[in-house]
Amino acid sequence: MAHRVELKTDKMLSKQGEEKVDWKKWKAERREEKKKRQEAKLIKQLEQQKQLEEHERQQLIEETGRKKRGRPYTVSIALPGSVLDNAQSPELRTYLAGQIARACTVFCIDEVVIFDECGEDPKSVAGEFKGVGKKGNACVQLARILQYLECPQYLRKSFFPKHQDLQFAGLLNPLDSPHHMRMDEEAEFREGVVLDRPCKPGKGSLVNCGMRKEAQIDKQLQAGLRVTVCLSKNQRSESRVYKGVVVAPHVPRSDAGLYWGYSVRLASCLSNVFTECPHKDGYDLTVGTSERGSNVDHLTLSPFKHLLVVFGGVQGLEASVDTDQNLDITDPSVLFDHYLNTCPNQGSRTIRTEEAILISLSILRPKISTVFPDVKVQ
Amino acid sequence: MAHRVELKTDKMLSKQGEEKVDWKKWKAERREEKKKRQEAKLIKQLEQQKQLEEHERQQLIEETGRKKRGRPYTVSIALPGSVLDNAQSPELRTYLAGQIARACTVFCIDEVVIFDECGEDPKSVAGEFKGVGKKGNACVQLARILQYLECPQYLRKSFFPKHQDLQFAGLLNPLDSPHHMRMDEEAEFREGVVLDRPCKPGKGSLVNCGMRKEAQIDKQLQAGLRVTVCLSKNQRSESRVYKGVVVAPHVPRSDAGLYWGYSVRLASCLSNVFTECPHKDGYDLTVGTSERGSNVDHLTLSPFKHLLVVFGGVQGLEASVDTDQNLDITDPSVLFDHYLNTCPNQGSRTIRTEEAILISLSILRPKISTVFPDVKVQ
Ligand SMILES: C[S@@+](CC[C@H](N)C(=O)[O-])C[C@H]1O[C@@H](n2cnc3c(N)ncnc32)[C@H](O)[C@@H]1O
Ligand SMILES: C[S@@+](CC[C@H](N)C(=O)[O-])C[C@H]1O[C@@H](n2cnc3c(N)ncnc32)[C@H](O)[C@@H]1O
Repeated sequence: MAHRVELKTDKMLSKQGEEKVDWKKWKAERREEKKKRQEAKLIKQLEQQKQLEEHERQQLIEETGRKKRGRPYTVSIALPGSVLDNAQSPELRTYLAGQIARACTVFCIDEVVIFDECGEDPKSVAGEFKGVGKKGNACVQLARILQYLECPQYLRKSFFPKHQDLQFAGLLNPLDSPHHMRMDEEAEFREGVVLDRPCKPGKGSLVNCGMRKEAQIDKQLQAGLRVTVCLSKNQRSESRVYKGVVVAPHVPRSDAGLYWGYSVRLASCLSNVFTECPHKDGYDLTVGTSERGSNVDHLTLSPFKHLLVVFGGVQGLEASVDTDQNLDITDPSVLFDHYLNTCPNQGSRTIRTEEAILISLSILRPKISTVFPDVKVQ
Repeated sequence: MAHRVELKTDKMLSKQGEEKVDWKKWKAERREEKKKRQEAKLIKQLEQQKQLEEHERQQLIEETGRKKRGRPYTVSIALPGSVLDNAQSPELRTYLAGQIARACTVFCIDEVVIFDECGEDPKSVAGEFKGVGKKGNACVQLARILQYLECPQYLRKSFFPKHQDLQFAGLLNPLDSPHHMRMDEEAEFREGVVLDRPCKPGKGSLVNCGMRKEAQIDKQLQAGLRVTVCLSKNQRSESRVYKGVVVAPHVPRSDAGLYWGYSVRLASCLSNVFTECPHKDGYDLTVGTSERGSNVDHLTLSPFKHLLVVFGGVQGLEASVDTDQNLDITDPSVLFDHYLNTCPNQGSRTIRTEEAILISLSILRPKISTVFPDVKVQ
């Protein structure tokens, strides 16, 4: 800024010195002025360059801060879909699935794996639930209800057509997780669905993010895709759309430390819970749960990136091991880094899986945060 | 024993010495024999005395051991009955009550206090549940379902006549607590009901303890009373009844460390939870729960005899304080020794009371056992 003020002063002085027309002098002055204009232009360019650099520097600081805000680990849980068959009515079957979804949300679980204990293959979520009594396809129904609840309300119409598995969805308690935004909530990230609208060449697709206006992203994507959108900080209020860019679904967690819901995965047996892990190097810390496990109070967790906690069904993990044709063992404890009794001195002869999830995640929570003292999850 | 063998040897020797009849000698011998018989009788009496003393000593050792096995503290929880009004159908209302009963059992809760948030007076459990929508008498219904579940199956017919509040009791999951004995289970203690049968003068009442034979107790009590019976160790298998004595209901816990179910108490407002405490000196450690409480991970509990943990309803403990005409405060935290957030960094905007009970009791469990390192609760 100092530069600019000086230049202006020079110019004003030169104008005040103008008294009689001397063409030689006049020409020299014009040349001089032109030179100064060019100089000024150059300086302006340099300043702009500087501003850009400053902006980038600020962004970098912000990014770094964001990384500091981020959560560098994930927690997955696994359970057999058969737990649903333990419910006494179709309504309670739905409610039980909802209890599991809520437990996962309360404890910021990133992935839920539903494994089959019965030796059927439930890989596809297209299956049909056949009704209580017939034992139905519990894995598929549990997966569908978990996905339904995880999906923000404004996107459900796009992703969940009417289905028998969701017949009693009206009884489900909402997850109320941070990625379930209200219409006018200001947020850095939002879940959305790519709209089936023609978009101008060179411009990105339009996305419904549950706001009053659509968001325009940086890419053209297939209509119907679910996307995570990072909305620009400065939106022009007069614009007909919001501006945003598509990011990977883990970004709200890994960059901003936000809990961003869970993904759901089906596994056709217990062993596939481990072998089909979506993380490149698998789960690096695994916990099995059982009343016959060792006392959780004596446990310290070692550092990890991807923790997996596995629960059994009505017959415990022994039954899951028994029906798994890939496993030639009888004692489930050998599958895990830790095999834990998470409720020593229980006052009931048996703890139900949906209870064990809340109980176990509650007692593991402080042990996990001890591993990551710098992370402030929200 | 040494004595007895010696006497026998003397006698045998004297018999061998008998050769010709000498009446004087014979008489002397008879006198001598009589003297010896009297001596033997005396010695036998002394031995019996000794045995009795040894038996008493053994009993004392056992009692002392039992005291060591005992649990010297109680844990109570309190919650507003209004939590039931948060359920979406009469079936789910029942199920929710069952979830609370199970949470209490899993964590060996000794007393559940249900307080009214609405300013009505629910002191009596005789009230009638008026149906969902009318908001009914949630406190009374919750109390009734809790009592119903706590009662061993074989006693339910005696204590729970048909009632609308229990219409969906068939959906409830059993508590499976240690005092819910199976018919042929051998047990030191059993819950029973005094039978309406004439009993012989000098003999105690007959009690149905859910066994193949009735138990005869040491007292005559009013028919229909629920009693805790301590069954004698040595029962004569040919006897038509089992022998037992009536004990206070806390004895299985305080003497043998057994979890023996919970009692249920109604309070017409939050403050009465404290003032109507059944323990002589009240609760000596109190905990309130709220997402606005301080981080539970930084808590150490001080020694106590009677711990109380209080939960709020849909609107939190603020609402319970607001409707309490005895309380002239707005901040609930001043009521408690500790006001705790038991689930820091929760991933849902709100945790439901029935979830908060499992979560809170799970995280408090190891903190309680640290206070009583010698107690092995079972
Ligand atoms: C109904 S229980 C299984 C009971 C089965 N009879 C057994 O003995 O394992 C269902 C699941 O809840 C979990 N669970 C129950 N009690 C537990 C405890 N004390 N500690 C840890 N997990 C427990 C385990 O994952 C178990 O497989
Ligand atoms: C639905 S919540 C109450 C929410 C209410 N809006 C509030 O702000 O307090 C019901 C009860 O669950 C318990 N609760 C919920 N979240 C909790 C937390 N993070 N820590 C401890 N207790 C919690 C409290 O007893 C609370 O009164």
